[in-house]
Amino acid sequence: MRTADELRDSFDGYLAMLPLAPELGRLEEALRYALESGGKRIRPILCLAVAEAAHGDIETTLPAAAALELVHTFSLVHDDLPALDDDAERRGRPSTHAAFGDGVAVLAGDALLVEAFRLALSYDDPAIARELADATVGMIGGQHRDITGDDVDLAEVERLKTGRLFAAAVGLGLRSAGVPDEEQAPWRVFGEELGLLFQVVDDILDGDGFAVRLGVVGARRLADAAAARARERLDGLVAETSVLAELVDGLAVRTA
Amino acid sequence: MRTADELRDSFDGYLAMLPLAPELGRLEEALRYALESGGKRIRPILCLAVAEAAHGDIETTLPAAAALELVHTFSLVHDDLPALDDDAERRGRPSTHAAFGDGVAVLAGDALLVEAFRLALSYDDPAIARELADATVGMIGGQHRDITGDDVDLAEVERLKTGRLFAAAVGLGLRSAGVPDEEQAPWRVFGEELGLLFQVVDDILDGDGFAVRLGVVGARRLADAAAARARERLDGLVAETSVLAELVDGLAVRTA
Repeated sequence: MRTADELRDSFDGYLAMLPLAPELGRLEEALRYALESGGKRIRPILCLAVAEAAHGDIETTLPAAAALELVHTFSLVHDDLPALDDDAERRGRPSTHAAFGDGVAVLAGDALLVEAFRLALSYDDPAIARELADATVGMIGGQHRDITGDDVDLAEVERLKTGRLFAAAVGLGLRSAGVPDEEQAPWRVFGEELGLLFQVVDDILDGDGFAVRLGVVGARRLADAAAARARERLDGLVAETSVLAELVDGLAVRTA
Repeated sequence: MRTADELRDSFDGYLAMLPLAPELGRLEEALRYALESGGKRIRPILCLAVAEAAHGDIETTLPAAAALELVHTFSLVHDDLPALDDDAERRGRPSTHAAFGDGVAVLAGDALLVEAFRLALSYDDPAIARELADATVGMIGGQHRDITGDDVDLAEVERLKTGRLFAAAVGLGLRSAGVPDEEQAPWRVFGEELGLLFQVVDDILDGDGFAVRLGVVGARRLADAAAARARERLDGLVAETSVLAELVDGLAVRTA
């Protein structure tokens, strides 16, 4: 059983060698730049850890894990655009549009999204690509509510913006491991709690979202409750879930 | 056998009733606006006509045809953005970003792309979604070459930007009709000729691309040659291809 750090190393190695479509030509540089921005890789690690806990194979799961990271990266590249959140920096260096121009960043995000589907479609089972597509539509809908203020229910917005891709990380790990649909529910509830935990801690660190709505103390309480429920869910699974528990603990106490 | 006009009516009826993911919320308005902009629907009609000529079923092919139109529409919405071609009008009315704002247009394009994959993934055979993804990556690579001037080979740029989705229209029609891979080649060559014909005539009407490179007379000669080769390819198929011949003739003489 690999630790979370070992899973991350396996994933980063896979991602660095990932072949992209030759038709992209020099646009590939912008995709690589966006992918190599040193993210936490939490979604692919979650996907790989779920697959391993469910007796799946890491190598088989890597394309699905990469598909999740490409969808996440596509959303960052587009959200950072001046037309949306207008962030010129991401993780201490110029965001993709600041480095390559707005037009190239639009196309790079588009290409990351399509490459994600190409990875998800490398499996014989179309359910993997279907779940990725459903989660991505939800994520885009959440981002639209966020920029337009259409929905005052913050929990609903976050469930779409962040929760759907976390749930898909669990779902793709289960599908890659061949876990039958009727046995997936408790794992998926764990994924939802983990997504909520991630988002609330994110808001505490950024001083927005739940931290504004509930105050820092209230947000911390919500995060701790989500972490506790996530651990409970793991305890209810008949599986070796120590790496997943490590992920819960890491997300609960993270400071960056 | 339905005429091209009848196929267009069937398609427009299907598209008007197409359910979009409820998670999109009010973003759906921008998607509908972009889809209802009165395009020629040439790609879906081509897909449906190929399926019918190959003894496939129109109703079965409609989701694939819609997936092609959604990918085409996604590309128009993003290409019209100020960061790319900066077109405030499309077909005589405000383009999507002019009507809804740049940020919403980015998200609407993203959502159109994902909805296209959801349609393509409604088939049991993942080859349909795979072919759509491969064509879309090629199209994005072509657009990147176009805006950066990375490639001086105009024919190669157009083969990517326009030809790949035309070829996919033929390919998805064949797959929906269950035509075996080994029998698809002559149909696909027809699709490539039709894509070239479409693009050259487009350039003559817009006064750019091939019309600048070859002059109007030279471009017209290239279009006529492509139309003649497309008709020859049809004559070589053992199938009732009168509707496809009607498409060739229509594209060759179109004035808008």
